[in-house]
Amino acid sequence: MSLKFTNAKRIEGLDKNVWIEFTKLAADPSVVNLGQGFPDISPPIYVKEELSKIAAIDSLNQYTRGFGHPSLVKALSYLYEKLYQKQIDSNKEVLVTVGAYGSLFNAIQALVDEGDEVIIIVPFYDCYEPMVRMAGATPVFIPLRSKPVDGKKWSSSDWTLDPQELESKFNSKTKAIILNTPHNPLGKVYNKEELQVIADLCIKYDTLCISDEVYEWLVYSGNKHLKIATLPGMWERTITIGSAGKTFSVTGWKLGWSIGPTHLIKHLQTVQQNTIYTCATPLQEALAQAFWIAMKRMDDPECYFNSLPKELEVKRDRIAHLLESVGLKPIVPDGGYFIIADVSSLDPDLSDMKNNEPYDYKFVKWMTKHKKLSAIPVSAFCNSETKSQFEKFVRFCFIKKDSTLDAAEEIIKAWSVQKS
Amino acid sequence: MSLKFTNAKRIEGLDKNVWIEFTKLAADPSVVNLGQGFPDISPPIYVKEELSKIAAIDSLNQYTRGFGHPSLVKALSYLYEKLYQKQIDSNKEVLVTVGAYGSLFNAIQALVDEGDEVIIIVPFYDCYEPMVRMAGATPVFIPLRSKPVDGKKWSSSDWTLDPQELESKFNSKTKAIILNTPHNPLGKVYNKEELQVIADLCIKYDTLCISDEVYEWLVYSGNKHLKIATLPGMWERTITIGSAGKTFSVTGWKLGWSIGPTHLIKHLQTVQQNTIYTCATPLQEALAQAFWIAMKRMDDPECYFNSLPKELEVKRDRIAHLLESVGLKPIVPDGGYFIIADVSSLDPDLSDMKNNEPYDYKFVKWMTKHKKLSAIPVSAFCNSETKSQFEKFVRFCFIKKDSTLDAAEEIIKAWSVQKS
Repeated sequence: MSLKFTNAKRIEGLDKNVWIEFTKLAADPSVVNLGQGFPDISPPIYVKEELSKIAAIDSLNQYTRGFGHPSLVKALSYLYEKLYQKQIDSNKEVLVTVGAYGSLFNAIQALVDEGDEVIIIVPFYDCYEPMVRMAGATPVFIPLRSKPVDGKKWSSSDWTLDPQELESKFNSKTKAIILNTPHNPLGKVYNKEELQVIADLCIKYDTLCISDEVYEWLVYSGNKHLKIATLPGMWERTITIGSAGKTFSVTGWKLGWSIGPTHLIKHLQTVQQNTIYTCATPLQEALAQAFWIAMKRMDDPECYFNSLPKELEVKRDRIAHLLESVGLKPIVPDGGYFIIADVSSLDPDLSDMKNNEPYDYKFVKWMTKHKKLSAIPVSAFCNSETKSQFEKFVRFCFIKKDSTLDAAEEIIKAWSVQKS
Repeated sequence: MSLKFTNAKRIEGLDKNVWIEFTKLAADPSVVNLGQGFPDISPPIYVKEELSKIAAIDSLNQYTRGFGHPSLVKALSYLYEKLYQKQIDSNKEVLVTVGAYGSLFNAIQALVDEGDEVIIIVPFYDCYEPMVRMAGATPVFIPLRSKPVDGKKWSSSDWTLDPQELESKFNSKTKAIILNTPHNPLGKVYNKEELQVIADLCIKYDTLCISDEVYEWLVYSGNKHLKIATLPGMWERTITIGSAGKTFSVTGWKLGWSIGPTHLIKHLQTVQQNTIYTCATPLQEALAQAFWIAMKRMDDPECYFNSLPKELEVKRDRIAHLLESVGLKPIVPDGGYFIIADVSSLDPDLSDMKNNEPYDYKFVKWMTKHKKLSAIPVSAFCNSETKSQFEKFVRFCFIKKDSTLDAAEEIIKAWSVQKS
């Protein structure tokens, strides 16, 4: 075969992807899918209605401004001005991207050079590592560690970074740290003290922060989402990333955004104009309209920003209780729409599964095949050195209709009875 | 300012973009916009209706398969199997991307390494050059040259590549050549002999071909679009790129696709999964439905694939005639929806324009400001060494409503009367 058919070096070894593998498995309609993080609940009716209406308008089916449709960047700056308590320039400090995924890619390609180091907190949303490698940089990993919780409920807040260990990862080559709060897959919501530790180190070592906050609205009672960019000295060095898919339960729209200072956003804009140029116009306009509708009643419990976390908290409690009732020990999340649990006590016979994979990969494949329930192995969110620390854990997504959760409950309860 | 705020080297000098600059100018609603290539005619009604219907379906607002929504890759493989006269594996030989722009980016990032050379034919769609540079490769330029046409109409087919000159650009470092047929901005439709010359060189020098065929349906009487991938020995080394925006007049949907052999497409898939992961689901499903509707009547003149070029041919002839009537010498395109013309005989007083730009940049800015008519300077489609060869040319887009063309006609005729 021709030598010219080879891939460019920048993507060498980056062809594996947990979503592609596990989404294919879960595509069997007889499988109850608590795997990939997408809602099977309905998005708000007005969101769908806006798209239906806009589809009929000729001009909104044509190209729009490359860095973000004017009405959308206006809506986003209006919203985030409230949250940041500062003015935001809609044209220079906001960039609309192909999902939060596209924002992560733009930020890393724009700012991270070959030879740089980027700190990634383990477990991590799986694309962080290959994106950093594709930029020719070195990911430097630090795990969240759990304190002992003997007897008590296990909470995502029991998982913390050790400040000394974190500082040991910073050096003159560190270009950025990637933060994710609320955290996927743990559901951890970083508190002010934790964010201050990270901010202090970013400032001390002159490091950027890429803050993935796609679950910003999804925090549960007793918790509050804080933006690291609002801490002193952090706005100028932080790119904050949000998601329409997570905000309005429309993951298929693939719209996200980066917010940050002009001196950083302008580099992300350069990447955008040389990669995809612009995002889909009808979706951007529909999203802008959805934001205006939601923003008009932000203090109202009916506002989707408030009603969705309330709805999800009930589902979180239900699935946590279910997992506990069959003897598992879930880590109850403070935010996000995932729950992880150590599943090793279920101890199925995995001998018919391929042997060269982490325990959780085999477990999920076995469970999907034999129990018709899918989930995501947590070691997919780890670098190769830390996979063994998390390979007993499996992630379940709970932004699902009650009927889907009923079906999952039935499977898990029957399984536990069979075992006992 | 912090050193860490600097851009990554890969995007150094890539921040200029003709679309961003000229789209901003043309945004003034009093300007008649024949600039950026988007239709102001309506897309087919069924295309818009499909999107309206699909927006209401919950599951079609969530994530879909990363490499292309199943119903869309099926529709695309069904269509292109007819055109290529060969079987196409919808999962392995088709990749749906964020516009043709996304396909170009994926192909170049996937296959072109630092130090490689990529041949680009001048004039060229402007993103080719920065995309090659962003991959760390060297663009190698070759101009299309016009034969003398004294007295006769000037046609895009008068512009050709010199085979010897073309061969002189190939060497062992050449990874790919980027072909664009029908060509933007010239409207040239490469004939079989011309494609064979390129194919022979690709095979002789073991080079890939990235064939941008977004205007594949838009060819005018007496011309036929041919796919270089169908020439012997070329399928295995060609990525062919298509566009929903150009096919169905919905540039704002930002959907495109790459078709090619598995051994190349798999590398583009790796780039996709580490950059944007997947494209918008509702738009992909609506596009799939639109294709099925169009494909059911492909031999019918009513089919959009046939009716749009007929409609555009009338507009082409109208604008060519208009430009001639005021003493300009347009290059009449055989395909695409642009026409370029040497505008220097209009000779406006450009003394109030910034002086450090090519003639056509100043001309278009002047025309937009003083005549309220916008276009695109052709030197934007040239590398710095060849800008002077094309800076007397301006590109007009003619996929516009009759009322838009009426308004343009009025401006151009009044201008010409003032001058005489």
